[in-house]
Amino acid sequence: MVTMQDALLALTNYWTQRGCMVVQPFNTEVGAGTYNPATILRVLGPEPWRVAYVEPSVRPDDARYGENPNRLQTHTQFQVILKPDPGDPQEIYLGSLEALGIDIHAHDIRFVEDDWASPALGAWGLGWEVWLDGLEITQFTYFQQAGGRNLDPVAVEITYGMERIIMALQKVDHFKDITYAPGISYGEAFGQAEYEMSRYYLDDAGVEENWRLFETYEAEARRCIAERLPVPAHTYVLKCSHAFNVLDSRGAISQTERANAFHRMRSLARQVSTLWAERREELGYPLGRVEPPAPAPTPTAFPEIDKPSTLVFEIGTEELPHAEVRKAREAVREALVSKLADTRLAHGEVRTYATPRRIVAIVEDVAPREPDAERTVRGPRVAQAYDADGQPTKAALGFARGQGVDVNDLRRVEQGGVEYVAAVRTDVGRPAAEVLSGILGQVVTGLRADKNMRWNDPQLSYSRPIRWLLALLGDVEVPVAVSSLASGRATRVHRIAERPVVEVPSADGYLDFLRKHGIIVDPAERRAMVIEQASRLASEVGGRIDVEGDAALLDEITNLVEEPVSILGSFDQRYLELPNEILTTVMRKHQRYLPVRAEDGTLLPYFVAVANGACDHDLVRAGNEAVLRARYEDAAFFWRADLEVSPEQHKSGLSKLAFESRLGSMADRADRIAAVASSLADLVGLPEADRATLRRAGELAKFDLATQMVIELTSLAGTMAREYARRAGEPEAVAQALYDMELPRTAGGELPATTPGALLALADRFDLLAGLFAVGAVPTGSSDPFALRRAALGVVSILRGRPELAAVTVETGLRVAADRVRAQGVEVPDSALAEAAEFVVRRYEQQLLDAGYDHNLVQAVVPLGNAPARADETLAELVRRTGDATFQDLVTALQRVRRIVPADATANYDASALREPEELGLREEVAKVREALGDAPTLAEFVDAASTLVGPINAFFDAVLVMADDPAVRAARLGLLASIRDLAAPVLNWDAL
Amino acid sequence: MVTMQDALLALTNYWTQRGCMVVQPFNTEVGAGTYNPATILRVLGPEPWRVAYVEPSVRPDDARYGENPNRLQTHTQFQVILKPDPGDPQEIYLGSLEALGIDIHAHDIRFVEDDWASPALGAWGLGWEVWLDGLEITQFTYFQQAGGRNLDPVAVEITYGMERIIMALQKVDHFKDITYAPGISYGEAFGQAEYEMSRYYLDDAGVEENWRLFETYEAEARRCIAERLPVPAHTYVLKCSHAFNVLDSRGAISQTERANAFHRMRSLARQVSTLWAERREELGYPLGRVEPPAPAPTPTAFPEIDKPSTLVFEIGTEELPHAEVRKAREAVREALVSKLADTRLAHGEVRTYATPRRIVAIVEDVAPREPDAERTVRGPRVAQAYDADGQPTKAALGFARGQGVDVNDLRRVEQGGVEYVAAVRTDVGRPAAEVLSGILGQVVTGLRADKNMRWNDPQLSYSRPIRWLLALLGDVEVPVAVSSLASGRATRVHRIAERPVVEVPSADGYLDFLRKHGIIVDPAERRAMVIEQASRLASEVGGRIDVEGDAALLDEITNLVEEPVSILGSFDQRYLELPNEILTTVMRKHQRYLPVRAEDGTLLPYFVAVANGACDHDLVRAGNEAVLRARYEDAAFFWRADLEVSPEQHKSGLSKLAFESRLGSMADRADRIAAVASSLADLVGLPEADRATLRRAGELAKFDLATQMVIELTSLAGTMAREYARRAGEPEAVAQALYDMELPRTAGGELPATTPGALLALADRFDLLAGLFAVGAVPTGSSDPFALRRAALGVVSILRGRPELAAVTVETGLRVAADRVRAQGVEVPDSALAEAAEFVVRRYEQQLLDAGYDHNLVQAVVPLGNAPARADETLAELVRRTGDATFQDLVTALQRVRRIVPADATANYDASALREPEELGLREEVAKVREALGDAPTLAEFVDAASTLVGPINAFFDAVLVMADDPAVRAARLGLLASIRDLAAPVLNWDAL
Repeated sequence: MVTMQDALLALTNYWTQRGCMVVQPFNTEVGAGTYNPATILRVLGPEPWRVAYVEPSVRPDDARYGENPNRLQTHTQFQVILKPDPGDPQEIYLGSLEALGIDIHAHDIRFVEDDWASPALGAWGLGWEVWLDGLEITQFTYFQQAGGRNLDPVAVEITYGMERIIMALQKVDHFKDITYAPGISYGEAFGQAEYEMSRYYLDDAGVEENWRLFETYEAEARRCIAERLPVPAHTYVLKCSHAFNVLDSRGAISQTERANAFHRMRSLARQVSTLWAERREELGYPLGRVEPPAPAPTPTAFPEIDKPSTLVFEIGTEELPHAEVRKAREAVREALVSKLADTRLAHGEVRTYATPRRIVAIVEDVAPREPDAERTVRGPRVAQAYDADGQPTKAALGFARGQGVDVNDLRRVEQGGVEYVAAVRTDVGRPAAEVLSGILGQVVTGLRADKNMRWNDPQLSYSRPIRWLLALLGDVEVPVAVSSLASGRATRVHRIAERPVVEVPSADGYLDFLRKHGIIVDPAERRAMVIEQASRLASEVGGRIDVEGDAALLDEITNLVEEPVSILGSFDQRYLELPNEILTTVMRKHQRYLPVRAEDGTLLPYFVAVANGACDHDLVRAGNEAVLRARYEDAAFFWRADLEVSPEQHKSGLSKLAFESRLGSMADRADRIAAVASSLADLVGLPEADRATLRRAGELAKFDLATQMVIELTSLAGTMAREYARRAGEPEAVAQALYDMELPRTAGGELPATTPGALLALADRFDLLAGLFAVGAVPTGSSDPFALRRAALGVVSILRGRPELAAVTVETGLRVAADRVRAQGVEVPDSALAEAAEFVVRRYEQQLLDAGYDHNLVQAVVPLGNAPARADETLAELVRRTGDATFQDLVTALQRVRRIVPADATANYDASALREPEELGLREEVAKVREALGDAPTLAEFVDAASTLVGPINAFFDAVLVMADDPAVRAARLGLLASIRDLAAPVLNWDAL
Repeated sequence: MVTMQDALLALTNYWTQRGCMVVQPFNTEVGAGTYNPATILRVLGPEPWRVAYVEPSVRPDDARYGENPNRLQTHTQFQVILKPDPGDPQEIYLGSLEALGIDIHAHDIRFVEDDWASPALGAWGLGWEVWLDGLEITQFTYFQQAGGRNLDPVAVEITYGMERIIMALQKVDHFKDITYAPGISYGEAFGQAEYEMSRYYLDDAGVEENWRLFETYEAEARRCIAERLPVPAHTYVLKCSHAFNVLDSRGAISQTERANAFHRMRSLARQVSTLWAERREELGYPLGRVEPPAPAPTPTAFPEIDKPSTLVFEIGTEELPHAEVRKAREAVREALVSKLADTRLAHGEVRTYATPRRIVAIVEDVAPREPDAERTVRGPRVAQAYDADGQPTKAALGFARGQGVDVNDLRRVEQGGVEYVAAVRTDVGRPAAEVLSGILGQVVTGLRADKNMRWNDPQLSYSRPIRWLLALLGDVEVPVAVSSLASGRATRVHRIAERPVVEVPSADGYLDFLRKHGIIVDPAERRAMVIEQASRLASEVGGRIDVEGDAALLDEITNLVEEPVSILGSFDQRYLELPNEILTTVMRKHQRYLPVRAEDGTLLPYFVAVANGACDHDLVRAGNEAVLRARYEDAAFFWRADLEVSPEQHKSGLSKLAFESRLGSMADRADRIAAVASSLADLVGLPEADRATLRRAGELAKFDLATQMVIELTSLAGTMAREYARRAGEPEAVAQALYDMELPRTAGGELPATTPGALLALADRFDLLAGLFAVGAVPTGSSDPFALRRAALGVVSILRGRPELAAVTVETGLRVAADRVRAQGVEVPDSALAEAAEFVVRRYEQQLLDAGYDHNLVQAVVPLGNAPARADETLAELVRRTGDATFQDLVTALQRVRRIVPADATANYDASALREPEELGLREEVAKVREALGDAPTLAEFVDAASTLVGPINAFFDAVLVMADDPAVRAARLGLLASIRDLAAPVLNWDAL
């Protein structure tokens, strides 16, 4: 058996043999090996650096008193930095797993997209988490930026999570059971420290003291920066960060304080990085400079083919994110088709495929070469080309010579009524390989992803590194050179294959050739395989998978593997006692397992995991089962712990959760929400039964934020409230209202099903908006830490979905919420409320535009956004009336009115000044319409009633000069028109139509 | 070549193979691996623990900007804890050196006494520094106490200093040149950090901020202790300690603050230790409990010998401190002789020997057994033993029966004039082996050293572990059992010998037998060998060693080895430019090398190192030369750096050296000293030439305390001042005065040679005493952080040595000094000055008693201690007069006077009341004597003058009743006597004689 210390030694030995220097863990608390200066500073600048070290990483937030089997306040990372990227870091990494005694041929080892960013340190990178049978054992990152500085060269960062790896290797379920060294368990060695440090971080750390430490560390960091000492400055930045983490785990950090602290730390980190980079330059880069790989030589000779042939072009990458697999396939097809169209090369169908490790284009029947082509080149005007005798002038002779044609062969062409001479030239067609060489190179350099990264290539930038190119036209190689890459006929198959690099004999049969090597290039084929395999396995235990419901998951799985190998796993029946949402969230989101359900839809204790290629199924199954068990055990642990505490008790815990320094704790916020919801209930005249529900749900509002489950899986807020409330014996309506109040979770997501729930949801969001606009925490373009956009969208969606709550408008809701905030002693300027309302209405506008409504129609109803349901109704009516001539006439008439009435004209006028019959008729008609209309007419009502105005309005304008010389008359006429304007104004913004 | 990282891996592998768990360096700054909780907490309590780890150890004080070749602010320790002591830790340790690739047969590896204590953490242990060819490479300690708690079992702590080891193995002269990993040097890897952290620690760290950190850490430590969380509490104690060290390296800690901070840290450390011990007990000792080794069985059978034989008894130890080697030899001889004397066993000469690893007793001609002996036991009185008929009574019968003799065999004995019956019994003599078994066991258990320790033995306690016993009587083994040790015939020779354990065939020829194995048991023989070898080697280069001057060093060397092997080494001529004191201090104190001098006494660039046993001389020479070179390079570095700065500039640096918070900086103190010295010069009327010297020396006073050399080698204070002053072109008299002002350094040490120097030395000490007594920093029995005792002794010694400075008394000196202290705004109560004066006079008293003066004579002159030179004179006179009848008569007469005069009687009396001729005669004589005596007569003058009083006094007493009835008469008579008393009083304390 490999003990923990054996494993650390094995990794140390492995990496030193690969040229890494070994350093020691840092001697101040760090949250990850990344923050050791041997990484975070050394990745900066042009010097090479290879290092490996152990790093006990402190995460106060993960403190669990040593009770959680998988969670520790200090866990052990093994960290490797390879700078520059050696070109094959994944392969080297796999060797290290073998050094740990892991049989990489038997296990399912995968590189699953996982990007990394530390906003606090201005650092980020792209890469993967490495899965061993579904267990995340390593973070593998191409480090792109640190301290806000681009890294050049890029460094490869490999971080092993040692406890997990060892738990898997030793097959134990609790970290304490790890054999750390012969005869001594992890628990024996570190159990007491784990408990005590957890106590300190969670319960006992002095809040005031740790703030004082934070401030003092910051002061020292600044001092060091001023003295140009990046090394001690960095140490103090780390100390700041640790003090902050301690405060955070104590629940002592409000959102405002968090943002502020992050800002301060990021600023320090940037200065430290800049300083370090400058200092290294001043020192003349003691370790030298990395030389980038040489560019591949530009092809000069191109093979010829003698008959139409198939082109295969393969772009070999490291594992792409699943979404990029799909996009890359499309992008390559488009690029290739369009670029081919720009040539004269004849070809057949263009198909593309993609797997995580390759993007493939196959073009049928590529002609051996472009045909020659004639091209007419315009010369001088005929008038200037020939003299009076019809003899070519110097101009014609020069033109012919320049074009390489005989002057007698010049033709005449007419352009714009002018005649010119012209030469007809022949462009000789290029061989296919030459044409393709250029095009294919451009396809590669043109690849772009949503997030792009750099690696050891001096020029390329893409989602993940491009490591090889294969280009075959029939059985000849098409030479393609892109930056440091040169194409060939070699492709790479599974990394664990006996021969991981193989030569493809010919483009024909490429798909079969790769299939023989276990690579299914066509995604459709892979998807079908997954469905077939998974369905078969599920049926073996009397279940099925949900092909439709899990379509997105199936797409994802399809693009996570090159050769799907489905494996049926099971989990303990007893976990089914947990709410299904928990189980499926974990399966889908965390593990990409397909849940297995009985015909009636109930969850069965099985899952289907999809491995990549041949492996030892029993071993891989056992591994995946252990991972799921650990995750479920975690969840069950939270579940049990949470159930031991009543909702009321949880609720009282909210006072320990900081919200925003000026707006108090989460408990304060929950109280405000309940009060606001109650006021809204008054507005809408909520029936008494619902009142009781609302009251009780208000009392418990947000209680689940204090539960361990929600602290852990925040996406389950509301879901857990409902579950825990039910189990605590609360009425179902109350449980449902608590669930509803967190809805909608996303744009277009599920809306509250009940009115009390909807009112709570509204109250929640009004409180958030009123409170944060009041204290000036307004979202900016890039930053919206309190998710106010989502809150505003929620308000809009709920109000749109519930016209019966029309009494609640954006403005009334915000006002009611503002009252509660004011009651807490916080000043809420009216201007802030207006801003908040405007902010919400803008979201409504955006929603309409996103839904594809005509811009003009949207502008017409946006002013009604204060009552979105009403605005929706108007919009629907508008859509209905579009093309309706009567309506159009009305619009025209009203717009005519609106154009002539100055903004400051009022509807008060002296009617006696009106004398003309058209004036009087209009006045009369207006009065009738006003009478016919209710208090707040809908658009339909208005149109029905006001159509009768069209005639009188037009007649008025035809007969009457509004701007009469007599001021009294003019005023009366404008007043009359203003009264029409005002009658129509609340209905919609007529000008927009 | 072994790189640094190879070496760390090799040690890690070696110790894991020996059952050590590997942990990581601690993630907060620690000063040494000891403070990692894996040591400092785990050594507590009964649980077993074996651990090994690397520990980058931070010592801000050692920061040198990376410029010093051997000094780093962070150096790398490799730390091993073996708990319990495995019984052979030194042997295991030697194996680890072989694992590092060190040929332990070729090198000279030694265990040289070096004890360890951390008052701040209440921890201490005894052990050695391990020398590799004179280079200290490891600290090897039997850990005895931590956090003020006794350790049971004791743990063995082994701490490797990795940089030094690697520098030696790689033969490089600067830590930056170490090959850390293939292709990367230590300097390349850590040079920048070394520079920057040095900058921070020495120049830039915020003083106020670090104090704030200290306070905050302390608060958190207390909070954790209150919550019973020793682990986080310990972390905060370490953080306190680091903050303190940072402040210290910034020169921001005054002596008072230091004492205070230490007190606080020690208190925390003790609480943490207690808490940890309690918590482990509460947890039920998860790692189990150490079982002590079983006691050796008590011998029951003893071999017989048939003729007088030689006894050899060898007590085998681990390397004893050299001073203990000498003491142990003596102690064993005394114990054995006295214990043998308590038996009837005949024996010849008892000789003892000792080496660092064995104490040997050889007893010639031990008789085969004790002779039988008769013993008379007293019974009842004869009167009660026989009845009137002469028949034995019951009492006699009972007594005889009890003694096992026939009643008729009872004899009679007389005691105190009373006749008793007595029985004569025969004690049968025991065999020699039986007698010796008991005695020898007691000798072992009775061994005690100045400092004693415990190891894995459950009962023994001694200077170092006792590991084996050998006891042979002729060729038979004498069984001796002491605690867990049982004797045999096996002894141990050099650890690196092919067979390190050999059996001794017979006591006869034991010394030769061991000599054949390279062990020279007799210290005299070893000493002679060293002298012979060293002298021969020195003469090869035209030099000699100073057998007389270095006698103490020779004694020490003799007891550092079992087989002296002298090796001549050389050093670079250029170091001879350094002051000789530096060179010889380093050679003698640090390296135990014999300096080599030319016939005229000038130092030659050679030294003699004495190795222990066979080794590769060239290798060992090269190693020792490298060590000396490094030390001299250090010194030369300081020397050069110091010379670049003028004395004035150094002096200005004193303001940065804190002295005592209330008394200001060292600069303030130096200014006071100059001013006080100037006042003292006024008192003694210093000639103008000396005045100029004093003025200039005063300006520079103490400047060398700011030099690097003195910061490093504090014992060179004054010496360096003289050297640097000379080189700065100061007059020789000034240089000498600066040297003198630090004298005497020890009790009985060299005194100032010049008057200006003496005045400065006095001023220095008066300032120290006046200032610190003023602020209440008075020495206690165990604590004298400012060395006030030494200062007081210095005052006394200087004043005794310079009668010409008689104008300076203890009181005047203190008063002058107090004026300067007061001028600085510090209150100096007169009571404090009186206390200080009393304190000084007590030192004088102690000096006299230590010098062997009769207690009465000392008491007679101590009241004169305010002027010690005068008191000395009096004492000398007293000694001269002892036995002088005239003097004795005078004393008797004066005492007679003193006895009768009440303490409150004054010498004012009405002379007219005196009528008797004896009264008048006495009065007349007193007047004459008073006239004859000068202002402050010496004892000699007084005796000469006052002897004439003896007759009149005696006559007075014979004739006159002092206590006359007439009060006037009585008063006059008492007044007359009081005038005599007062006349004599200043001369000495007559009552004491």
